[in-house]
Amino acid sequence: MNSKGAALAQQLVPSTYVQQGLDAVRSREKLVTSLLAQRRLPDEGWDDASVELLLHTLSAMDSNNFRGSAGAGEREARVFSPLVARRHFYLAHGVGRSGDVAAVQPKAAGSSLMVQVANALAKDVLRLAGMRAVQAALVLPVATGMSLTLVLLQLKESKPHARYVIWPRIDQKSCFKSILAAGLTPLVLANVLVEEEDGRPGGFLKTDLAGMTALMDQYGSDSVLAVMSTTSCFAPRAYDCVEEIAKLCQERNIAHVINNAYGVQASKCVHQVELAMRTGRVDAAVQSLDKNFMVPVGGAIVCSASREVVNRVAQLYPGRASATPTLDFFITMLQMGKHGYKRLLEERKHLAAYMREQLEALAADEGERLLHVSNNEISFAMTLGTFCSNIMDLQEKSRQLTLLGAMLFSRGVSGARVVSCLDHKTIAGHEFNAFGAHHEAFPVAYVTFACALGMQRGEVDLLVTKLRKTIHEWRTKQAKAEATASTSPSESELEHGK
Amino acid sequence: MNSKGAALAQQLVPSTYVQQGLDAVRSREKLVTSLLAQRRLPDEGWDDASVELLLHTLSAMDSNNFRGSAGAGEREARVFSPLVARRHFYLAHGVGRSGDVAAVQPKAAGSSLMVQVANALAKDVLRLAGMRAVQAALVLPVATGMSLTLVLLQLKESKPHARYVIWPRIDQKSCFKSILAAGLTPLVLANVLVEEEDGRPGGFLKTDLAGMTALMDQYGSDSVLAVMSTTSCFAPRAYDCVEEIAKLCQERNIAHVINNAYGVQASKCVHQVELAMRTGRVDAAVQSLDKNFMVPVGGAIVCSASREVVNRVAQLYPGRASATPTLDFFITMLQMGKHGYKRLLEERKHLAAYMREQLEALAADEGERLLHVSNNEISFAMTLGTFCSNIMDLQEKSRQLTLLGAMLFSRGVSGARVVSCLDHKTIAGHEFNAFGAHHEAFPVAYVTFACALGMQRGEVDLLVTKLRKTIHEWRTKQAKAEATASTSPSESELEHGK
Amino acid sequence: MNSKGAALAQQLVPSTYVQQGLDAVRSREKLVTSLLAQRRLPDEGWDDASVELLLHTLSAMDSNNFRGSAGAGEREARVFSPLVARRHFYLAHGVGRSGDVAAVQPKAAGSSLMVQVANALAKDVLRLAGMRAVQAALVLPVATGMSLTLVLLQLKESKPHARYVIWPRIDQKSCFKSILAAGLTPLVLANVLVEEEDGRPGGFLKTDLAGMTALMDQYGSDSVLAVMSTTSCFAPRAYDCVEEIAKLCQERNIAHVINNAYGVQASKCVHQVELAMRTGRVDAAVQSLDKNFMVPVGGAIVCSASREVVNRVAQLYPGRASATPTLDFFITMLQMGKHGYKRLLEERKHLAAYMREQLEALAADEGERLLHVSNNEISFAMTLGTFCSNIMDLQEKSRQLTLLGAMLFSRGVSGARVVSCLDHKTIAGHEFNAFGAHHEAFPVAYVTFACALGMQRGEVDLLVTKLRKTIHEWRTKQAKAEATASTSPSESELEHGK
Amino acid sequence: MNSKGAALAQQLVPSTYVQQGLDAVRSREKLVTSLLAQRRLPDEGWDDASVELLLHTLSAMDSNNFRGSAGAGEREARVFSPLVARRHFYLAHGVGRSGDVAAVQPKAAGSSLMVQVANALAKDVLRLAGMRAVQAALVLPVATGMSLTLVLLQLKESKPHARYVIWPRIDQKSCFKSILAAGLTPLVLANVLVEEEDGRPGGFLKTDLAGMTALMDQYGSDSVLAVMSTTSCFAPRAYDCVEEIAKLCQERNIAHVINNAYGVQASKCVHQVELAMRTGRVDAAVQSLDKNFMVPVGGAIVCSASREVVNRVAQLYPGRASATPTLDFFITMLQMGKHGYKRLLEERKHLAAYMREQLEALAADEGERLLHVSNNEISFAMTLGTFCSNIMDLQEKSRQLTLLGAMLFSRGVSGARVVSCLDHKTIAGHEFNAFGAHHEAFPVAYVTFACALGMQRGEVDLLVTKLRKTIHEWRTKQAKAEATASTSPSESELEHGK
Repeated sequence: MNSKGAALAQQLVPSTYVQQGLDAVRSREKLVTSLLAQRRLPDEGWDDASVELLLHTLSAMDSNNFRGSAGAGEREARVFSPLVARRHFYLAHGVGRSGDVAAVQPKAAGSSLMVQVANALAKDVLRLAGMRAVQAALVLPVATGMSLTLVLLQLKESKPHARYVIWPRIDQKSCFKSILAAGLTPLVLANVLVEEEDGRPGGFLKTDLAGMTALMDQYGSDSVLAVMSTTSCFAPRAYDCVEEIAKLCQERNIAHVINNAYGVQASKCVHQVELAMRTGRVDAAVQSLDKNFMVPVGGAIVCSASREVVNRVAQLYPGRASATPTLDFFITMLQMGKHGYKRLLEERKHLAAYMREQLEALAADEGERLLHVSNNEISFAMTLGTFCSNIMDLQEKSRQLTLLGAMLFSRGVSGARVVSCLDHKTIAGHEFNAFGAHHEAFPVAYVTFACALGMQRGEVDLLVTKLRKTIHEWRTKQAKAEATASTSPSESELEHGK
Repeated sequence: MNSKGAALAQQLVPSTYVQQGLDAVRSREKLVTSLLAQRRLPDEGWDDASVELLLHTLSAMDSNNFRGSAGAGEREARVFSPLVARRHFYLAHGVGRSGDVAAVQPKAAGSSLMVQVANALAKDVLRLAGMRAVQAALVLPVATGMSLTLVLLQLKESKPHARYVIWPRIDQKSCFKSILAAGLTPLVLANVLVEEEDGRPGGFLKTDLAGMTALMDQYGSDSVLAVMSTTSCFAPRAYDCVEEIAKLCQERNIAHVINNAYGVQASKCVHQVELAMRTGRVDAAVQSLDKNFMVPVGGAIVCSASREVVNRVAQLYPGRASATPTLDFFITMLQMGKHGYKRLLEERKHLAAYMREQLEALAADEGERLLHVSNNEISFAMTLGTFCSNIMDLQEKSRQLTLLGAMLFSRGVSGARVVSCLDHKTIAGHEFNAFGAHHEAFPVAYVTFACALGMQRGEVDLLVTKLRKTIHEWRTKQAKAEATASTSPSESELEHGK
Repeated sequence: MNSKGAALAQQLVPSTYVQQGLDAVRSREKLVTSLLAQRRLPDEGWDDASVELLLHTLSAMDSNNFRGSAGAGEREARVFSPLVARRHFYLAHGVGRSGDVAAVQPKAAGSSLMVQVANALAKDVLRLAGMRAVQAALVLPVATGMSLTLVLLQLKESKPHARYVIWPRIDQKSCFKSILAAGLTPLVLANVLVEEEDGRPGGFLKTDLAGMTALMDQYGSDSVLAVMSTTSCFAPRAYDCVEEIAKLCQERNIAHVINNAYGVQASKCVHQVELAMRTGRVDAAVQSLDKNFMVPVGGAIVCSASREVVNRVAQLYPGRASATPTLDFFITMLQMGKHGYKRLLEERKHLAAYMREQLEALAADEGERLLHVSNNEISFAMTLGTFCSNIMDLQEKSRQLTLLGAMLFSRGVSGARVVSCLDHKTIAGHEFNAFGAHHEAFPVAYVTFACALGMQRGEVDLLVTKLRKTIHEWRTKQAKAEATASTSPSESELEHGK
Repeated sequence: MNSKGAALAQQLVPSTYVQQGLDAVRSREKLVTSLLAQRRLPDEGWDDASVELLLHTLSAMDSNNFRGSAGAGEREARVFSPLVARRHFYLAHGVGRSGDVAAVQPKAAGSSLMVQVANALAKDVLRLAGMRAVQAALVLPVATGMSLTLVLLQLKESKPHARYVIWPRIDQKSCFKSILAAGLTPLVLANVLVEEEDGRPGGFLKTDLAGMTALMDQYGSDSVLAVMSTTSCFAPRAYDCVEEIAKLCQERNIAHVINNAYGVQASKCVHQVELAMRTGRVDAAVQSLDKNFMVPVGGAIVCSASREVVNRVAQLYPGRASATPTLDFFITMLQMGKHGYKRLLEERKHLAAYMREQLEALAADEGERLLHVSNNEISFAMTLGTFCSNIMDLQEKSRQLTLLGAMLFSRGVSGARVVSCLDHKTIAGHEFNAFGAHHEAFPVAYVTFACALGMQRGEVDLLVTKLRKTIHEWRTKQAKAEATASTSPSESELEHGK
């Protein structure tokens, strides 16, 4: 409401009331001014009403919402469905421009402003989490896998004849496929198994730095475009030792991309990425929006210690894109605030410790244990050594273990992964023994659980209760099956266990 | 966004874009300024985004949305459910103050502003419809019936010993009960049946002015608090002749309240209320918000040629009330705009003519006719003279006719009313013969249909098709029943026909 | 999704996934089934999605949302603005029917179902709070004041010649006006001042039972329609001793209505109402929806140990009404759940104790004290004995004290009330000395603060900080004024202090 | 509501009402069943309530909305902000799976179902528009440019050594960059200028088929990966003659990708794509979601006469993606319906004819004309031959023409493009003379206007009025400048004219 409006309002409502009301409106404007000035997360999260007021103001600045204008272009952001228009807060022009996905749009000043601030907030939140070396960040409207592809395509522009990407094995399809999609050839580097000190079957997996050096030597710096390392992953794989990789890459003039998928939430992980950036070569790190910042799936942040790399990725992107991942992130950062985000990080840390304790207790009860993986603060692997130990048929063993996973899912535990170390998979011609285990001969089957940002204590308790119950049911089933030589589980029973 | 915000925005997005965007924001502010200055319906309706921006600005002016304040009262408009908060656009203080339902609230400048403007829009829209004599209007957060009670209670304050209300019979329970609820005694005035010129059973019903004069004389001006006349009603009852009643009331110093429930949508009806206000005594007219202005049920407008009467009604209301009816009306007037409202009135008028034609054609095919009621432009009554003409048992006849109504409802025709002229009803000790017919001896059964604001041409076509089909089914059923001496319809079959 | 839909879905998505999804849909249906079967607050609150799914299902059951139907009535619940339609979840028929505000509507099965359950939940939540004697409850779509009027109007129906209501003084306009609006005459009963044991100016106010008996005798049972007692109120007034009043009313055959405005949140208050209902006569108790259950202003619950009284109130209401207060309450009860509500009650209790401590400490620092009022758990009064103690001009003193209130409001403390004990007010011809103090000669000025449901600990801290600071500023201003013989505060400065 | 719920409801509301309500719920379920069975646009569009009910049912099927489950994965689709959750209707898992962007997700049966149906609707709507040859369609969650890149990357998989893409020049950056982003090299094919028959400067641009053949011969089928042709474009460029190109590609075994950006809305364009698919080689056609189907920017449909191609594109995509473009499209198709879509197509056709007429009249008044481009039904080019005809300095001329564009934009005409034929541009090392003109020596400057789907007649009128007025202002400015030798327009004045 402008001053003329305020004067008129005072003819209808006493001026002291109107003034106090307008003071409140002004204080919200100050929030906005402060956001635009600092381009950082607000200390305290904004309430819904403040966010909506800002978004409605921004959308009023986009040409598709101008009153009394004539749209004579081929793209005027007309929206047919009011349901759709509303869910976008009337912002319909997307992000970017043909030249650059981070560019501002003449027709959409409001959307453009939102995008610029969102990218600044992305940088701020990464730095808040501990990645102080980050100098530029970009919210990409595609998820982690596709973002990695874009980064690789961009790297390829300046080294068009290099066709290999060294990839320390991580059994997750998206990142592997991100290399293939870029038209590049992955060189799979097996992980090193570090066995348990007490000699029991287990251990953890770490980067084979010697093997990586050998590969670099074998193929040569001209042929190897990049190393794609991975931090956050399922135990018992540890974070890749990105600091050492960064040094190797710097020495050999090979690019280094870190798939830091959901690593922002874990302080040790963040610290290692930070060290890598400070002491070696990290062209870019990619992190998932949904996993780190609790928004719906669809975006990622690519960041770098160099503004130039980030700009080049933005400029590679051909054309416009959906504003949704950026908008979701923007809203969430405003509502979370710096204190809210710090609190979430803190809570996750404590909850992970609690989850570890609870799972260790359960494992002990079941004659199993949690694998010790120092460089993995998010995922826990509990051995299943006593499960199916007497089944000799490996295929049958794999099926029975998969059944445990399926049973967990259908009993309301999502995200648990049973790894039999017995599954073979072919992806685009590449063979992976014991897919899921990140290693072709991991010595014991296990099941993993993650403690991710936003998990609740009640969920951990529920998980442990349900896990205990499901194991019992599974064992009972096994006992019966042995007694009666029953058939193995059906395909449909197994669906969710895969 | 204030000027400081604009300057900062221009560091992120080129200033020409920002300026154009801010021009658009300003043009929306101008809409608001213009609304506050003129307090009339905008010429063109506002889009959703403009309305939402205004509402979010208003709610920011209410204390429950202030940031960093401490609520130390017993009523701080805290809202538990975000779903609920959002549906009220964060406006939670309701309307009014202990002293006056139209008063502004210190804690809620935004809500108060909305209420003041809504009341001004109520006056404007009534004047637009043709009620130029209206000098004040008030959106009451209660529906028509309760609004009538409030008006009567207010009238009673200044004439505490008068206990009668003369009520030309209209067979609709709410208005009758509105008199009882006020602790007053209705004097039921029978309508005059004006027979068809061709002598066929039918005719229409009009006010018995001589009877009214007689009642006034019989009870005396000191005992008769008011006449409650009715305009909009189901055919074949015509609008009461409010102009003549107004004159009578003026002569005898008796108050006159017009129940103009859904009459604003009909130009002839509006004209008669206008004449009554100009030439005689009309203390207040009450009109339904939902029926005249297409909002959910819950509010009414009380209006008068005298600001004082409206103020007194506002001051009678003890305490605060829901802001919802006012808010719904406010939003709707902004979105409808003057042109939109005029268009709706025009469309209804044409559609009513079309509906009359279609029904007349159907009636002719069925050996029936539409009753001619000159003073009723909304409701049409089609005779059912040939229906059940051979059933002698009146109760059975009534049941069979009711069945026709129930069949219509279950086949997707809502709002049709079959009037058998055979139902007896007792309301709070008052006996009504042939309830529903507004007359104790209307000569023929009939079914009524209304053409109300917002009805679509497709609905009229659907109505006629379904009516034709249902009549056929009903007649077939009757024929079968006669052949087999079947039982009459069950209670549950009849439910919707009542 | 019905079984045919499920089968088709399984052609598109593997059946195990679809089944698991449908299991989840079924589990939400079970929530609904359980709600309909038990008609009690769910143990745990529902999430937004479950509530929205239910509301969308209910609205699909209302005729205005039927597809392919023709609306031929005068009231078809057509809604012009999509913004409005959506905020009502497409429920537009309101509540009630001409005969009864609690009656079901043939055209609106979904709305009707919601209303029935909401009324059951109202009964349940009152019983949960401790009012076990309640046998029936009705959510009225009008706020406390108007609800009291309706209750009185209903009582009057069966005792039409009684015109007095005995009203132990409570300086709150709505309830006083509720008597006037019903066309009745209040007999104001002064409160008894119980002085402080240590003789300092202060004390608390309690019901003058002897005075009440005398009034009953003086006017006689035939003339006195009811006693309207008040529980929750601003300190230092205590709850009326409703148990004793109930006994008196029972003995004298006089109705008894309890204005339990925001008393449901306080266990001692609830207990006294419970005792009154069990041991004497309580025709009805009225409680505010917004103050007790954290919904926007607009509704109230009328309850009784007798289903009949509640039914009669419902039947008195002339016509339909807004569904909003009922819907807000319905959603809130589902989302709060039994545990959530209990937790809120518990939190308020602890916070009230904390607030008392903090205020006592502050009062001590300022040479003041908190008045001891055992029967008031919500409102606290801090004396202002040392404030303006040297101003002799009473009008000036009143102005300066009012200024303190205004300063508090403009510094972000809402709801604090400064009572100078010097203001005179006339309401509809009735004179009230020292209005605001509930007593015409309360010996000391004071300021009140309430700790109401939903208040946050942070708010209490903020209140105390701001109060301390404001007192300091006020004192400084006073000192300066004395030194310079300044003018008293302007009207506009005082606006919020009233 | 299940049958148990229905039975319980009938204890609260009469069974006939409940039954009728449930019939309505069932009729909505039938809509869903019919949608799942036919997987085609409904004949009539769905109302908001039906869409919301379906979406809420679908989201209830996704694991992030399961009640009482424990999320132990790294990705559990937890959403921090309720504002964000709600705008996604609680669907948060995105689309796709690591293996395939069209794959179903075990954790998200509801989202998966939506995606499957959306893809079927995409195929249906393209066929409705006239592309009957389409056998498979996929909604990609990236806009046109990036979709083209994905298609190229996929084609490259099976022909890894081919590095050229023949690209008939179209001066729009995204599609050119889509080739570069895929790491491929564009071979720019100049257009043929077909001059006006009457010899006036003008004419139109068409594909140089002979030149294309020559390029194919020159580089060879092994080196040329694909031709990327363009249909919809700015006049005076015509649609590429895709039928002939398709034949050439088939003969030479070269892939053919059609950038059919906004061509679905134009029947002649659709017809040519259809012919190309039927008679030659078209690997895939890509069409924009926002421009053809009135949703916010962010998605595209890739379609083909071969299911296999579409599947391969889906499988190339590495990982998950945002569900928003798919969801927006899904909602819009349901709400538009078959009839609504046909009506929009029809309206656009008529409006384009009207716009042509209006522009021709204006052009005649200004001494200009509309260029005749038979194969372009959407974009119109009006010559600016008399504008700046006396300015010799080409840079200044370009600036002055650009100013006209900027003036149009700031006067509320968006989307008009002034093409001076004088601008030079370098994109990634490729030089383009007269960028914007699609030809390096187009003989006359011009301004283009498009008549796109959803444009309103009022907008055309407004456009013509504003255009006339702006030309007048521009000419006045020119005249003054000449008189006073003024400076040329500033950078900021020109911003929007670019």
